[in-house]
Amino acid sequence: MPRRLTVEQYFDGVVRRDRSVLGRAISLVESKRSADRRLADALIEQCLQHPKQAIRIGVTGVPGVGKSTMLESFGMMLVKQGLQVAVLAIDPSSSRTGGSILGDKTRMQQLSVHESAFVRPSPTDTHLGGVARKTREAMIICEAAGFDVIIVESVGVGQSEITLAGMVDCFVALMLPNAGDELQGIKKGLLEWVDIIAINKADGTNEQNARLAQRDFQTAFHYLPPRFQNWQPKVLLTSALHEIGIAELWMAIQEHQIFLMESGHLQTLRQSQRVEWFTHTLQSSVWEQFMAHSAVRTKWNSILQKVRDGRISIHAAVESLLLDGSGHDPLD
Amino acid sequence: MPRRLTVEQYFDGVVRRDRSVLGRAISLVESKRSADRRLADALIEQCLQHPKQAIRIGVTGVPGVGKSTMLESFGMMLVKQGLQVAVLAIDPSSSRTGGSILGDKTRMQQLSVHESAFVRPSPTDTHLGGVARKTREAMIICEAAGFDVIIVESVGVGQSEITLAGMVDCFVALMLPNAGDELQGIKKGLLEWVDIIAINKADGTNEQNARLAQRDFQTAFHYLPPRFQNWQPKVLLTSALHEIGIAELWMAIQEHQIFLMESGHLQTLRQSQRVEWFTHTLQSSVWEQFMAHSAVRTKWNSILQKVRDGRISIHAAVESLLLDGSGHDPLD
Repeated sequence: MPRRLTVEQYFDGVVRRDRSVLGRAISLVESKRSADRRLADALIEQCLQHPKQAIRIGVTGVPGVGKSTMLESFGMMLVKQGLQVAVLAIDPSSSRTGGSILGDKTRMQQLSVHESAFVRPSPTDTHLGGVARKTREAMIICEAAGFDVIIVESVGVGQSEITLAGMVDCFVALMLPNAGDELQGIKKGLLEWVDIIAINKADGTNEQNARLAQRDFQTAFHYLPPRFQNWQPKVLLTSALHEIGIAELWMAIQEHQIFLMESGHLQTLRQSQRVEWFTHTLQSSVWEQFMAHSAVRTKWNSILQKVRDGRISIHAAVESLLLDGSGHDPLD
Repeated sequence: MPRRLTVEQYFDGVVRRDRSVLGRAISLVESKRSADRRLADALIEQCLQHPKQAIRIGVTGVPGVGKSTMLESFGMMLVKQGLQVAVLAIDPSSSRTGGSILGDKTRMQQLSVHESAFVRPSPTDTHLGGVARKTREAMIICEAAGFDVIIVESVGVGQSEITLAGMVDCFVALMLPNAGDELQGIKKGLLEWVDIIAINKADGTNEQNARLAQRDFQTAFHYLPPRFQNWQPKVLLTSALHEIGIAELWMAIQEHQIFLMESGHLQTLRQSQRVEWFTHTLQSSVWEQFMAHSAVRTKWNSILQKVRDGRISIHAAVESLLLDGSGHDPLD
């Protein structure tokens, strides 16, 4: 194999689901080198011309909830049914332990070596924005490669869960079976993005608590607007270790996907996800350019301090930076 | 009185709580004329030099929940205790009925003519961003005028509730006593901003339902991260019409304010609100400038369409606009 591939070679390898080329293609979109970036753009454009529809599933859960065991059980069940399964991770590497290739392979020992599966660890990046872009592009590559199911997982640090929810069809949150007053690390807005909750480790002495948590989550959902109209989030009990509820989880995900397709939500969801992601990326880039102006950087700290202490009106603070920083008079 | 006031005349009238000058000062910050805008900036700067601390309360609730009756009962109770009370509205005029001066005065018949109260209707603007800025500045003016309590109300259209929550110390949501599966028009994220819920119209045959709703909201709060650590949102039963629970509502607000002060949250809250509002305003302005570039406007629709249909990578779409639109090569 040549040291550098052409776009055609990358693309051919991707559609053949050649694991080695797939891995290199994803490394390409993760690269920061501008030559790689141009090649990656061309590859992504080509993949977009050959869209195959995969079910995109997001899975989140705090450390200790049994996510690795769940992905292993769930993924193995799917490959045994003859499905092609890709697992991608979205977490910034800095904020997770064991995010190395070895770490992820160790986590899903059977799945990671199965011929119908492709397990890709977290990109090595510290910015969620960067990781999210790479994960979206890796998802496009896996879709072009013809995977039936793409699972993107998040360990739930910072904003990664909401970012993840915004790039999948079905968003699954794994929860611990603690009923009562525990917040279980649930973050602002998380439940409003969830399509399915799986209360994991619902076995043995935990079962009673898990049932209480199930009822309480169902009550909580009554007071939250659903992610999709006419989809009431499901709350399931699972035990990944004892392989309980895994088939039911897959049934719930399929039911959700059928609902999305029949209601027309799937197409509009993916369109709006692309538009949101584009707008968000463009706004961030425009903002970064503005903040990079030397005139803005010079004044920034002192103006921010005045704003914080309430010594300047917001309007005056904004005007002073706009006039100086943009290089344009806002009134011209 | 002269047709145009100087900054000093505005400021003197404000600190004397002269109703006529107060009204004109708020009209000044609402004006779109650039001469008025400069005068308004100077007035706001001067008001910021004389900060007096008021309790800032946000009140939201869907039409029909009894908000006007509540504001009348609650406001009258406060002025009878010798407090100075200002009521401001945050809703874009286009999206509310009866948002005229006459409408608001009619809504709070006793309060609006009481010598210790100042009731100001919604600014006539269709943009929430514009209304929010004007309301923030009106709040600064009322605070300099020495009002003890400033109530900002929102009818809860669009994003106005979240915007409102971001500018007050204590955010109160009025709810109807419908228990069970009803969403009651609760919007994404609303409950996570709420400090106090008042289930209104909790009288007569509604009382049983109101108690059920109270219990269910309390359950829901167990599954939501609180706005402030160590503050468990309170769920009260009220009947503004029969003046039930109004004193308890005021006690809960005062308890919340004492909590904010003693925990140090109040100072950091107001600092972070100012910084967030400033950053948000600046980002919007920078984005508007970018979108106003003719090169961006020319290409926008066609690029957006390609993004929506998935025919171009996000990265390529962003790059093509940045190169054309900013006037700068992003790599230079």
